[in-house]
Amino acid sequence: MATALRRLAKCSVSARLLSFAGHSRGRRGHFARPCTVVAQRNFSSASTMTVDLDSSTGIAVMKLHSPPVNSLSLDFLTEIAISLEKLEMNKGCRGVVVTSALPKIFSAGLDILEMYGKSPERCGEFWRAVQEMWLKFYSSRLVTVAAINGSSPAGGCLLSMTCDYRIMADNPRYSIGLNETQLGIVAPFWFKDTMVNTVGHRTAEIALQLGLLYSPQDALKIGMVDELVPEEKLVSTATEAMARWFAIPDHARQITKSAMRKPTIDKLLSARETDISNFVSFITKDSIQKSLKLYLENLRKKKA
Amino acid sequence: MATALRRLAKCSVSARLLSFAGHSRGRRGHFARPCTVVAQRNFSSASTMTVDLDSSTGIAVMKLHSPPVNSLSLDFLTEIAISLEKLEMNKGCRGVVVTSALPKIFSAGLDILEMYGKSPERCGEFWRAVQEMWLKFYSSRLVTVAAINGSSPAGGCLLSMTCDYRIMADNPRYSIGLNETQLGIVAPFWFKDTMVNTVGHRTAEIALQLGLLYSPQDALKIGMVDELVPEEKLVSTATEAMARWFAIPDHARQITKSAMRKPTIDKLLSARETDISNFVSFITKDSIQKSLKLYLENLRKKKA
Amino acid sequence: MATALRRLAKCSVSARLLSFAGHSRGRRGHFARPCTVVAQRNFSSASTMTVDLDSSTGIAVMKLHSPPVNSLSLDFLTEIAISLEKLEMNKGCRGVVVTSALPKIFSAGLDILEMYGKSPERCGEFWRAVQEMWLKFYSSRLVTVAAINGSSPAGGCLLSMTCDYRIMADNPRYSIGLNETQLGIVAPFWFKDTMVNTVGHRTAEIALQLGLLYSPQDALKIGMVDELVPEEKLVSTATEAMARWFAIPDHARQITKSAMRKPTIDKLLSARETDISNFVSFITKDSIQKSLKLYLENLRKKKA
Repeated sequence: MATALRRLAKCSVSARLLSFAGHSRGRRGHFARPCTVVAQRNFSSASTMTVDLDSSTGIAVMKLHSPPVNSLSLDFLTEIAISLEKLEMNKGCRGVVVTSALPKIFSAGLDILEMYGKSPERCGEFWRAVQEMWLKFYSSRLVTVAAINGSSPAGGCLLSMTCDYRIMADNPRYSIGLNETQLGIVAPFWFKDTMVNTVGHRTAEIALQLGLLYSPQDALKIGMVDELVPEEKLVSTATEAMARWFAIPDHARQITKSAMRKPTIDKLLSARETDISNFVSFITKDSIQKSLKLYLENLRKKKA
Repeated sequence: MATALRRLAKCSVSARLLSFAGHSRGRRGHFARPCTVVAQRNFSSASTMTVDLDSSTGIAVMKLHSPPVNSLSLDFLTEIAISLEKLEMNKGCRGVVVTSALPKIFSAGLDILEMYGKSPERCGEFWRAVQEMWLKFYSSRLVTVAAINGSSPAGGCLLSMTCDYRIMADNPRYSIGLNETQLGIVAPFWFKDTMVNTVGHRTAEIALQLGLLYSPQDALKIGMVDELVPEEKLVSTATEAMARWFAIPDHARQITKSAMRKPTIDKLLSARETDISNFVSFITKDSIQKSLKLYLENLRKKKA
Repeated sequence: MATALRRLAKCSVSARLLSFAGHSRGRRGHFARPCTVVAQRNFSSASTMTVDLDSSTGIAVMKLHSPPVNSLSLDFLTEIAISLEKLEMNKGCRGVVVTSALPKIFSAGLDILEMYGKSPERCGEFWRAVQEMWLKFYSSRLVTVAAINGSSPAGGCLLSMTCDYRIMADNPRYSIGLNETQLGIVAPFWFKDTMVNTVGHRTAEIALQLGLLYSPQDALKIGMVDELVPEEKLVSTATEAMARWFAIPDHARQITKSAMRKPTIDKLLSARETDISNFVSFITKDSIQKSLKLYLENLRKKKA
């Protein structure tokens, strides 16, 4: 009963929100289904996120919902990038909170299945989508806040690091980091640059080589996240943080953000095709495909 | 009575100092008025600083005195730069302590009145003077120590960050930071570079976007200042710090300083004219002029 | 008696190790003299290190032994570089621990005698060897761990900073840092770059200008070393650390390491000859030679 009331309360809060057409293939709006997230959990896998924009505050909440672990597949990456682009073009939107609709996981990172047994063309298409997501988020005119409500390895960590501010649930069972080397693969230079910009050269050097995953407490210590809160306070804290960023005139904040990030962005833009062919030739190597096969088999054994 | 004795004591200390012709328009030397700073407070606004060089130690003390808040106007910037240049050319001078002769404020930063309602030519002239001050201080052959005895927002913070060492009075009512975005304006790339060189990329990214002003304690934590002391110990601590820098042969220290700072300096030198025209076209925009007008009106209301 | 037993125990541990022909001029292997280090102290100065590779673990231990203080002379630098190169070419070797066989000193840094009263040609040859050591270590495919069991000023600090991981004996009598300016000389740009990569720009700026030597505790605080342990645990801790690095597939770790360090390495490679002639013209100046003479005389007086 109490739970039902709380859900109702959530819906009434949600009812204040204006729907945002954040779904890449023109799914129906929000008014038809006020308790978006709760409802959507039962939907098909095509419905991989909800994006709700509160027109009174200008804050959108993007909830990633690609079970089981928000793996970043080609389709999912494309949907995320298009959703952000639509928010960018919406004058009523000033900021976006990125979080997960799934329990215990923010995002498990790039979908290994997109890298295993795929044609070079498909691998290249996939990599371009990874670049696109990074480029869009790292250069977004919006205030971007990651509300990290679960583990966030590899590409999940990267997504959170593109944001302006990172708040993580203070749960020691969660971890975050660029752990690519643990899988025998390598974070590309722009993952590395983002990491260096976030935690500095020396910490990045150790973390990237060892593929370290940090507890929330350790992630706070090295500056990989900016704040820890109990999980139930994650969204309210994200909203409070957003208010501090909204207190600054948008144009001044945006020019400043661009000044800080443009050199890193330009570096990828000027080497984008080379980066794609480097990735493709690396990932399609026999030795790498063997590692990935082994990794996937171990993963399946664990589940079984 | 006790106060009078203390003032006398100060004068006798001061009497050991050799005067330095640090005033840009040839004002009279120091011996004529031993208690320089105290006396000068009653002078006309043309007398905007005292520069006393102790020939026995090689330490000059530059006390900024442009009431009410040491705003960096075109004239004041020019005077500061010329004063430093004269010290540079004086073989008896090895270091300079920069501090304020005004209570509670180190410097309020760039003079907003130089940016509001002025011709593009005048704005350009002003900006060149800001660049000049930064270039001279950031590349100074002298050991430069900022004794920050009051609040130090925006350009005041920049001036202190050009120094080799920063000591701040441990008074929680003082604050320091590059808060340009709070006024709707933007710190140019070389302010940003100086900030990144001082506190690192990630801290600079947040601080510059939010225009954060830090308490002395927080400024110490992020490395924006190097040391906190009670205000009455500021000058003596600066002198002690200077002794540590003087223990190093000048040529080795200078070459090392240049190696650390030259890339940042060269970046401005190679883009100086572009930077000026960027500033002029930004600051003379209607929207920016409106923000500045609003800001100045609020400032006047506060005072009234 | 107990001591004798411990020495015996050490020898029996040592006996498990395979010898590595790490001596540049074909000295005899390790099996002939199981307690290598102890024995070697009585040898001629030509025998300046032992390199023992444990084929079961893939870990080599390089013990520097150039009495009295492991000064980096032209010969010693050459021997170190050749030893590392041989390990690099040995497929059985995955990592190397660099440590000192001398008490209280890791390495006193570049040999001043190589810079004083020498011909420009000889100075240039010396400097090329310093570059070579740095280039080889900073870009090594091996996991490199410095087990810093004594003071490590100047070039000694540099050598340790080229490693992937630094463990220092927690003895307050030891110190570490790039203290070149204290001698009136200047760390070249690639020393500076290595320092900035390790401790960040601002800390490097102060440390290099003042030629600061840090206690182990302070070195840990600024990130110049990664871990402190009691001296007797230094080697076992180094082995444990190595295990964490070995857990990562070599190719992924190596590509990541290269991505982090290549820009810094390329900078020296593209300016190598200029850097040599800069060094030679600086060090052969009368004023610098005078400082070095003074320094050497003081050193001799201290000893006497």
